[in-house]
Amino acid sequence: MTKINHVVLSGGTHGNELNGMFLIKKFQQYTNLIQRPGFSTHILIGNPKAVALGIRYVDQDLNRSFERESLENSTLINYEDLRARTIDQMFGPNGTTPSDVIVDLHSTTANMGLTLIVDSEEPFVLQLAAYLNSIQPLLKVFSAAHAGRSRDSLRSLARFGFCIEVGPIAQGILHAELFQKTEALIHLILDYLKQYNHNQFLLPTRSLIVYRYMAAIDYPRNEFGEIQAMIHPQRQFKDYEPLHPGEPMFLTFDGETINYEGNTIVYPIFINEAAYYEKGIAMYLTQKEQIAV
Amino acid sequence: MTKINHVVLSGGTHGNELNGMFLIKKFQQYTNLIQRPGFSTHILIGNPKAVALGIRYVDQDLNRSFERESLENSTLINYEDLRARTIDQMFGPNGTTPSDVIVDLHSTTANMGLTLIVDSEEPFVLQLAAYLNSIQPLLKVFSAAHAGRSRDSLRSLARFGFCIEVGPIAQGILHAELFQKTEALIHLILDYLKQYNHNQFLLPTRSLIVYRYMAAIDYPRNEFGEIQAMIHPQRQFKDYEPLHPGEPMFLTFDGETINYEGNTIVYPIFINEAAYYEKGIAMYLTQKEQIAV
Repeated sequence: MTKINHVVLSGGTHGNELNGMFLIKKFQQYTNLIQRPGFSTHILIGNPKAVALGIRYVDQDLNRSFERESLENSTLINYEDLRARTIDQMFGPNGTTPSDVIVDLHSTTANMGLTLIVDSEEPFVLQLAAYLNSIQPLLKVFSAAHAGRSRDSLRSLARFGFCIEVGPIAQGILHAELFQKTEALIHLILDYLKQYNHNQFLLPTRSLIVYRYMAAIDYPRNEFGEIQAMIHPQRQFKDYEPLHPGEPMFLTFDGETINYEGNTIVYPIFINEAAYYEKGIAMYLTQKEQIAV
Repeated sequence: MTKINHVVLSGGTHGNELNGMFLIKKFQQYTNLIQRPGFSTHILIGNPKAVALGIRYVDQDLNRSFERESLENSTLINYEDLRARTIDQMFGPNGTTPSDVIVDLHSTTANMGLTLIVDSEEPFVLQLAAYLNSIQPLLKVFSAAHAGRSRDSLRSLARFGFCIEVGPIAQGILHAELFQKTEALIHLILDYLKQYNHNQFLLPTRSLIVYRYMAAIDYPRNEFGEIQAMIHPQRQFKDYEPLHPGEPMFLTFDGETINYEGNTIVYPIFINEAAYYEKGIAMYLTQKEQIAV
């Protein structure tokens, strides 16, 4: 077991996701809320220029800007390239304050409720998730270990990176109920890490339900790349609910239903996330698994 | 009675409100859907550059750019100034095709359901609203006659301007159910106008419930203009529901409730609209009135 020395809480990594950003600003004002004996808690506004402009990013998605090759490629000099390098120099593995844990706060237009995104299934990660889930049973755990996010995201700088993803929240607004739930979850995480350092932790459970990344699905598009269908009304806001073979996924503008053609039950998430239209993602498909921790 | 000759259906007046824009694109492809004997129906993408960029506007809100003095002030030359002038030259009172009716399609992050916004309470306007409401009882009618929108909005170019405002929809996403409801409402409007021209119309009702604009309420802010509170969870998504004296309106980041201090029952709408944060509007207060038509 390795001691946790530095924890980073970050928000505003996407400048139009206000909940996380305002929560970090609150912690900036009341630093005592996030201090725990045994480690230091740092706060970070990921993309201050995008926050000031009220947009997701200036030149490129900051949360896809942390590939090691990019960080070390000094010819990349747009705003997010530079910002990623700065953050790496602060909290990256060779930074001034190498982070053991980063918790990056995000919101989504999808009905993700309260989701913890993990990028690996190491025991430390799953045990923390299982603990949180035991206290907050509404928390869903999305394992993005196979989605490449452990290489390019802000949280990937830490030994253990987590994302708290809450929704549905429109871009550019605050959502009080999810603000309070996120804050409560952060306190649970910090309390857990304190106990972990003292080796005092009794894991209340030995299993955890995890939604594992399988694939990203795009909208139906024409030859010019233009979207030809919308998320079907029967699928909208149904994140984490089973999608059976033959069930509706999309509805064309002419009213024609497009069904799911796979032959296994899947659990779509990030359904109709605004920022994913440009990425060519209408939803992620996941598998629901109960795993031992 | 004056005949209706030209009707304009517009969307994409705000470039990140996808539902209206995609509906206009559908009508562009299937023009037969919107033609009716007795008048011409035209379509318009209000702000094509903002649509291409996926943002509300480029330099300023197009839907606040139609003040007559601005249109006639040739020193105003930002993108929306120029675009407003172009649209005025097409569909304004002295344009090549002066519009009798404009129906401008919008969406909002507030829970406005299916709302018709009217800028006057002339008999023609109220009778159309009453007809629509008799067929689609979920339709709410918001009278913005005292909110100044009859002077600066795109729809203000027409003799009779209407806005269809649907929500909650996050910016940058499509919402299939409200797409279909909006389309159905447009067909009702076009059918009504056809009958109106033929003087064949029997009004099915003599009264209408209207929500009349009273005031705009800002978020609590500090001396730097920074927001200090969120819409209270008990008020979020409660558009058109009565707010009684003493009931919660806001929740500070510290968890303190701020109550409504007025002494009459009001009906807040546009609660937590993303685009209104920069305008200093947390919600509009309205009065609910039953009026004869």
